[in-house]
Amino acid sequence: MSNQVEEFNAYRAKMNEKILADNNKVIKRIFNLDTNAYMEGTLDVKTKELLGLVASAVLRCDDCIKYHLETSYKEGISKEQVMEALSIATLVGGTIVIPHLRRAYEFWEALEAES
Amino acid sequence: MSNQVEEFNAYRAKMNEKILADNNKVIKRIFNLDTNAYMEGTLDVKTKELLGLVASAVLRCDDCIKYHLETSYKEGISKEQVMEALSIATLVGGTIVIPHLRRAYEFWEALEAES
Amino acid sequence: MSNQVEEFNAYRAKMNEKILADNNKVIKRIFNLDTNAYMEGTLDVKTKELLGLVASAVLRCDDCIKYHLETSYKEGISKEQVMEALSIATLVGGTIVIPHLRRAYEFWEALEAES
Amino acid sequence: MSNQVEEFNAYRAKMNEKILADNNKVIKRIFNLDTNAYMEGTLDVKTKELLGLVASAVLRCDDCIKYHLETSYKEGISKEQVMEALSIATLVGGTIVIPHLRRAYEFWEALEAES
Amino acid sequence: MSNQVEEFNAYRAKMNEKILADNNKVIKRIFNLDTNAYMEGTLDVKTKELLGLVASAVLRCDDCIKYHLETSYKEGISKEQVMEALSIATLVGGTIVIPHLRRAYEFWEALEAES
Amino acid sequence: MSNQVEEFNAYRAKMNEKILADNNKVIKRIFNLDTNAYMEGTLDVKTKELLGLVASAVLRCDDCIKYHLETSYKEGISKEQVMEALSIATLVGGTIVIPHLRRAYEFWEALEAES
Repeated sequence: MSNQVEEFNAYRAKMNEKILADNNKVIKRIFNLDTNAYMEGTLDVKTKELLGLVASAVLRCDDCIKYHLETSYKEGISKEQVMEALSIATLVGGTIVIPHLRRAYEFWEALEAES
Repeated sequence: MSNQVEEFNAYRAKMNEKILADNNKVIKRIFNLDTNAYMEGTLDVKTKELLGLVASAVLRCDDCIKYHLETSYKEGISKEQVMEALSIATLVGGTIVIPHLRRAYEFWEALEAES
Repeated sequence: MSNQVEEFNAYRAKMNEKILADNNKVIKRIFNLDTNAYMEGTLDVKTKELLGLVASAVLRCDDCIKYHLETSYKEGISKEQVMEALSIATLVGGTIVIPHLRRAYEFWEALEAES
Repeated sequence: MSNQVEEFNAYRAKMNEKILADNNKVIKRIFNLDTNAYMEGTLDVKTKELLGLVASAVLRCDDCIKYHLETSYKEGISKEQVMEALSIATLVGGTIVIPHLRRAYEFWEALEAES
Repeated sequence: MSNQVEEFNAYRAKMNEKILADNNKVIKRIFNLDTNAYMEGTLDVKTKELLGLVASAVLRCDDCIKYHLETSYKEGISKEQVMEALSIATLVGGTIVIPHLRRAYEFWEALEAES
Repeated sequence: MSNQVEEFNAYRAKMNEKILADNNKVIKRIFNLDTNAYMEGTLDVKTKELLGLVASAVLRCDDCIKYHLETSYKEGISKEQVMEALSIATLVGGTIVIPHLRRAYEFWEALEAES
């Protein structure tokens, strides 16, 4: 099951590299910002990861959800906390979020199985 | 071709079970509401299914579309009626709905092939 | 309170006229389709109006909601039926639909007050 | 400037009352859930408010943003923390979030001016 | 009628100033990028403005549409070209774009009236 | 790698045929409009393709992106121009566009590999 995590990361890394190699300034800066925005600030890293997760969930972006699930997992955020964040996302975003919830659950299990 | 229906339902059931086993109250209640909302009321079940279908289509949620297609099929809603509902969805939601229309068509054929 | 209905219709009519006077073919045809799509077909006009209403609600388009509320009202759809349709929209689209629900309620009252 | 806060709350309260008086079960339960979901759980109330704020911001729902800004303000969340949460929303949701950021800023000022 | 343009610009400028004064790095950089992205590149400024306009229209962001309408107007893009771009937006994004089309039309007239 | 292009086109053609065979008038006219809207007008075909691409990207419709990438490729639009258009889409639509950017990149490579 952990293959799902590896495959996701491999594809992501491969394509990011190609995109950045192209030297489009706007895209490069957005990628940069994407790293900076989740760094410790007035809000701690865990809170920011959960904010990124919920934003991704209500906008229904599976890859973005997976990315924040993985970072959340590495930051030691518990499954219960992730689920609580996702429950808010499901309430705010509606039942159309549920299919993404299923895939989020599956990916979280893959993260647990991998370690 | 009917495998598409079985696979969809099997994955859906498996993950729903896991999600509900986690006992997040908000999510459990949303799942409950999702069942209640489509029951006979002032509007009949068929109309409600079509409302759910159109809402899913304009929000471009393939899994939600499939779910409502299957329930519509079981409720005896005709292909022509489903298509008419989806034509309104395509007009309101724009040509970005068309790829979902293709997959909806394919899933409807799978539903017909299965029975 | 009925001024809300009149103002909405007056602005809508005035701007539609200007847009159509410009003779952009694509836009003219979309306007045409918008009339045709809600005509009696395999589905009756009331069902279609409710489909348009729910599509508008989950996509959170206040003007589109108002338009379909007015047509629904003229077609004799009851407040209870409209509310039931909007409850499905709120469930599918999430709590972000609620502010539009408030304005829909207010507009429905204006429609009732007007007649 | 604090009138903005009062007007917002007055309209919200008035229309919520009317909606709930109608006894649509699905809508009533969604309103209930909306209260429960932000209560202390594994995540504390402040974190949940920020999650609700970011979800509202990326989905670009001004009224939802205002609601969570007010609750955040009452919970003692600082302007800097709110801004940091909104900066993530703007990055994830794109520059289309900026107009909502302007109105959020204005509403936050109204909240400060009111107290 | 040109007041609409002035009011829009005044509010926009006032709030942008306040937001930028707060020194949130992520937001400041996004504002910066927003200026850079529309500068002459492989694509000329006019094409980029139309791209920004269509992106704003399908995402149904009135303020973003107004901003790009004004820049398009200053760049000498004709009304017919703007309308053709917006017709593509209406087709891709569906009839829910139409209310924004009305307001876009009104704003374009205000731009013409102002000069 | 060019299989991705063939498979995409084959599925698209097969399902479009089935949909059109069903004779739903509204859908047929939308399909027709979809062809007409991108024809030479006041704006040239290349500009229109880029408008369609950016609209598809911010609305995060992978199939629509692929379609416009292929047409852009055939029209002789350069990779650099496509990337510049997509950089605007990523800025306007936010980091949730990035996963679609990865798949767009992959598809563009498939288009180059095919010829």
